[in-house]
Amino acid sequence: MDTQIVLDNIFIFIAAVLVLLMQAGFALVEAGLTQAKNSANIMMKNLMDACVGILVFGAVGFSIAYPGAFNGWFGFAQFGVADFMSQDVDGLVPSVDFLFQAAFAAAAATIVSGAVAGRTQFKAYLVYSIAITALIYPIIVSWAWGGGWLSEQGFVDFAGSGLVHMVGGVAAFMGALIIGPRLGKFKDGKPQAIPGHSMPMAILGVMLLFVGWFGFNPGSELAADLAVPIIAALTAFAAAAGGASAMVVSWVILKKPDVSMAGNGMLAGLVAICSGIGDMNVAGTLATGAIAGSIVVVAVLAIERAGVDDPVGAISVHGICGFWGLVATGLFATTNSTGGANSGLFAGGGAGLLGTQIFGGLAIAAFVGVTSGGLFLALKAAGILRVSREEELAGLDVSEHGSPGYGANLRLHIDSAGKVVSAPVGDPAFSVAPVVEVREPISV
Amino acid sequence: MDTQIVLDNIFIFIAAVLVLLMQAGFALVEAGLTQAKNSANIMMKNLMDACVGILVFGAVGFSIAYPGAFNGWFGFAQFGVADFMSQDVDGLVPSVDFLFQAAFAAAAATIVSGAVAGRTQFKAYLVYSIAITALIYPIIVSWAWGGGWLSEQGFVDFAGSGLVHMVGGVAAFMGALIIGPRLGKFKDGKPQAIPGHSMPMAILGVMLLFVGWFGFNPGSELAADLAVPIIAALTAFAAAAGGASAMVVSWVILKKPDVSMAGNGMLAGLVAICSGIGDMNVAGTLATGAIAGSIVVVAVLAIERAGVDDPVGAISVHGICGFWGLVATGLFATTNSTGGANSGLFAGGGAGLLGTQIFGGLAIAAFVGVTSGGLFLALKAAGILRVSREEELAGLDVSEHGSPGYGANLRLHIDSAGKVVSAPVGDPAFSVAPVVEVREPISV
Amino acid sequence: MDTQIVLDNIFIFIAAVLVLLMQAGFALVEAGLTQAKNSANIMMKNLMDACVGILVFGAVGFSIAYPGAFNGWFGFAQFGVADFMSQDVDGLVPSVDFLFQAAFAAAAATIVSGAVAGRTQFKAYLVYSIAITALIYPIIVSWAWGGGWLSEQGFVDFAGSGLVHMVGGVAAFMGALIIGPRLGKFKDGKPQAIPGHSMPMAILGVMLLFVGWFGFNPGSELAADLAVPIIAALTAFAAAAGGASAMVVSWVILKKPDVSMAGNGMLAGLVAICSGIGDMNVAGTLATGAIAGSIVVVAVLAIERAGVDDPVGAISVHGICGFWGLVATGLFATTNSTGGANSGLFAGGGAGLLGTQIFGGLAIAAFVGVTSGGLFLALKAAGILRVSREEELAGLDVSEHGSPGYGANLRLHIDSAGKVVSAPVGDPAFSVAPVVEVREPISV
Repeated sequence: MDTQIVLDNIFIFIAAVLVLLMQAGFALVEAGLTQAKNSANIMMKNLMDACVGILVFGAVGFSIAYPGAFNGWFGFAQFGVADFMSQDVDGLVPSVDFLFQAAFAAAAATIVSGAVAGRTQFKAYLVYSIAITALIYPIIVSWAWGGGWLSEQGFVDFAGSGLVHMVGGVAAFMGALIIGPRLGKFKDGKPQAIPGHSMPMAILGVMLLFVGWFGFNPGSELAADLAVPIIAALTAFAAAAGGASAMVVSWVILKKPDVSMAGNGMLAGLVAICSGIGDMNVAGTLATGAIAGSIVVVAVLAIERAGVDDPVGAISVHGICGFWGLVATGLFATTNSTGGANSGLFAGGGAGLLGTQIFGGLAIAAFVGVTSGGLFLALKAAGILRVSREEELAGLDVSEHGSPGYGANLRLHIDSAGKVVSAPVGDPAFSVAPVVEVREPISV
Repeated sequence: MDTQIVLDNIFIFIAAVLVLLMQAGFALVEAGLTQAKNSANIMMKNLMDACVGILVFGAVGFSIAYPGAFNGWFGFAQFGVADFMSQDVDGLVPSVDFLFQAAFAAAAATIVSGAVAGRTQFKAYLVYSIAITALIYPIIVSWAWGGGWLSEQGFVDFAGSGLVHMVGGVAAFMGALIIGPRLGKFKDGKPQAIPGHSMPMAILGVMLLFVGWFGFNPGSELAADLAVPIIAALTAFAAAAGGASAMVVSWVILKKPDVSMAGNGMLAGLVAICSGIGDMNVAGTLATGAIAGSIVVVAVLAIERAGVDDPVGAISVHGICGFWGLVATGLFATTNSTGGANSGLFAGGGAGLLGTQIFGGLAIAAFVGVTSGGLFLALKAAGILRVSREEELAGLDVSEHGSPGYGANLRLHIDSAGKVVSAPVGDPAFSVAPVVEVREPISV
Repeated sequence: MDTQIVLDNIFIFIAAVLVLLMQAGFALVEAGLTQAKNSANIMMKNLMDACVGILVFGAVGFSIAYPGAFNGWFGFAQFGVADFMSQDVDGLVPSVDFLFQAAFAAAAATIVSGAVAGRTQFKAYLVYSIAITALIYPIIVSWAWGGGWLSEQGFVDFAGSGLVHMVGGVAAFMGALIIGPRLGKFKDGKPQAIPGHSMPMAILGVMLLFVGWFGFNPGSELAADLAVPIIAALTAFAAAAGGASAMVVSWVILKKPDVSMAGNGMLAGLVAICSGIGDMNVAGTLATGAIAGSIVVVAVLAIERAGVDDPVGAISVHGICGFWGLVATGLFATTNSTGGANSGLFAGGGAGLLGTQIFGGLAIAAFVGVTSGGLFLALKAAGILRVSREEELAGLDVSEHGSPGYGANLRLHIDSAGKVVSAPVGDPAFSVAPVVEVREPISV
């Protein structure tokens, strides 16, 4: 066996593992930026996006995404048990191709999880997760990466600003819109802050996503070659520009450098660069990332003011900055894959490419908007989309899964006169060294 | 130097790093599923499993595990300072072989940590950890991977369902049995819930273990070739089937989709597939994983009802599903390493293989049960196995290590009449933005 | 393209990704070992060390660090847009070289973050972070790795005990000294414990750093060859020796095996081995790591007693053990790069090398001490170094970034008579399943 082919396969395997690490990153960002009472629910949704996603994408989605020769709109290859075991190739074996793409499908699915956090029934989420990994996402992929009609238009989306992130972002928008805001999010039409329960958790998630993105973008080269390190460096530049720009813009608008905005800015830069990273130079990459980091701050605030409750900013990061990434490719692409010359600074992909990118983005948004919107409406009509008011107040961890995400720190018993009657410090079933230290008896 | 040989070595190095990441995953699962007052103790135990494990396995264990030509039961090669520095090979250099195997040894050791959480003296745990990485685990490994008597029987355990996980799981059972349940776990013989302190932490741990397992299984190929991506895809399928099946089964039995069961189900699928992953196709892999995910839910409940207190489910995940993995290989193996043909669906390893697998599993369980059981009994007799009642109530973080795992969130002082007399919000040594917001000045 | 060259580049890319993962590890160690009220601030600082670091190191630092032919003290190559896109090489492409080095720069910067935690203005930290990644760190690197005067002396620092860690550690010392201790840290000159808010978070950070270090050290080989796995095994041995030795020494001195000391001991071993890992055998590595783990326990206590407040032990781990690593190379190096023979046990680098290492270490410390000290003094003079007393008491999360790192767990309202008048369990904006369980209706 030729060592270069082995290296190609091993490299894509490693890239796939990095993309699977992103599932942990998504889970932490979403859980950290939302309430503790819904944290186990969010972890469960992300876990199931991976489990169900791998199964469903293996059974159905992969065959739709890469249908072989087809009509350009919908096709179905029959990947099966034998194909996944094949070593008989002159490039990537089907198993590693599948693993890499399945990790992408799980990522697309999980973007919605945060946007509908805190009020969605788990079973509705499962139905949605199956639908997007089995059908919605694979159909979009077939249009471009699968050789369909979008690719024939010259549409450029190297690693999926549009095909992955905008798909998730548009579905997130439809979900948040149709489910409606969390209780208490808007008072007299004005948005109220419902702070996340752990910023360290959220930023750890951002950092793991950053690390995982070095599988997402460089792996999309689908071979081990010397373009890989270049794509890797550009990935770092886009992330850095996005994070730094969101920090500055949030400082200007909100008067303080906002931590969650900076984190989302880094992600926005990463999302936006996916499309053009194979065709941009450093200057175009920095511009794409920095603009994404600025967009995301404004978009998060605008979407909230428009009355849509997206607890984690998924619509802004993945939907809006995914679309921006497609546009940026039209503006800044420099290399031959788009016909331009590498002029060192912004060369511009040309008006033709820009138009194609915008058109492609709108086509994706329309298809995902209609299909995911229809799905959420159907779930709503069936009465299984949203939990009850009582369940929402109690938190989805308890109401949907039967136990809290965090063990009770303390059970202070307070009587009807407001008197603390018991603090069971010595209770052996007590979960935590008590946060309340009872100094008793204190004689005042 | 031949590039393929370099690639082999680099690949196993990367696989070893992924397996070392599993140490973080184990620590988080165990800490998350147990009480906060014991969380630092669990992190310390996992840290020391790695530190002490690497030292002890390097000094003794590695030489026992791979003794070269030997009597099939016990041997000792003398790996030393010079061997670890050798580049003079036509395959894997000793250093990378050692690193990969040492990471496995640490994993085997750490499985016990969760099962005996909350009541074990740290020094007893250290003794156990040294014993398993120096002797118990290496002897078992020598029987199969080291070329000993089990491998001569045709016993199949590609990545260690039996050799790694069941070793840890059986030792975990002996430990939990001999140490006895935590205070308050059983009331009148009925098990009481002692909820873990952080489900997000536990599921993050599952996700890191999932990622790390892509070093564990594909790395066990011990070469960079085109079987690696196939093993990787099967790893993903087994994990997905295990997680999804545990979710469904817990939903049926417990009426809600249980988060920790789903997480343990994913791990159970991963544990069970280790044995046969080199000889199974997709269908066999899915069956192995799905059955493991179902087994683990039932096993966790059954073990609890039998009066054994395993706070994290380690016995079920690693012990019982490790054994199931050995059996599954006998049922579902299809490829030539077991004499069957790759027939596309379950081909079955044949009655002969099944018998060998069961016999091998029982032999491992017997040896580990006797040796680890003897060790725990000796520690008990020496009076250093279990902490005192007071220490257990206070939590091992404080009693064994001198400071709490979590900084005090708040020190509310409550007088003997149940009146809150002081909430030292402005105390500069105060560790946290106060969780209690005092709206009125308190005049004492 | 030659596959070996591709493999070299892919390997360094993977190593760079592992080093970038260390950023998450640093953030968790620092946040976990400090107070919750400053946790979001620490995550933000680490995030910006990466974002700003990548941008600034790309624009300026990289050109200073690797200036090509120069006077040995300061030079500037003009790496630009075109260079980062180049595939035209016979070794590492500039993009991967940059990515790997930028990750090192961010690591050097972030070491300071923990030492000045809890009292430093965010904008001052940004200025410092830019200065170290743009100037201070790159100049030091140019002296040795860039081919400058230190390398001409025969100074050995394979992966940066001195060039990376001691740079960060000395800057951390100057920062902590000039900013002064946190409020309440010293009472009548005696140090007071200000416990960190999450030991599980800190040890998770240590574990991620351990994993990431397998990019840091083996990647410093700057090629994929059979020395890589050897360096990897030695990395594991140094970490293990450091962690185990710190555990034992803390047990002796503090009467209990201290968890944070063990974690810092592992890091100390890793820091110390960086310098000589290309020239040491197993015995020398174990000695270097074990001594580092012992040093760090004593150093942490001594620095605190000397009146310097380093909340996370960064000065001890990176500064003192970085220097120790340079010395250890002089004592224990065995291979030809230092002229000695590989004699199996400590061969000693010779008095000449030892002198060079000590001299080099002192030169680095002097330069970093003066430049970073000058910078911190200038920031102090400008009145932007330290937050106000009120801001420090409130915590930097709120005062510097506008919202707390952790969502309010509970808002207990306590009236002026010490009576609990309201526990807003049903408040929809309530962030957490209540930690206080109100067993009785409260009639207000």
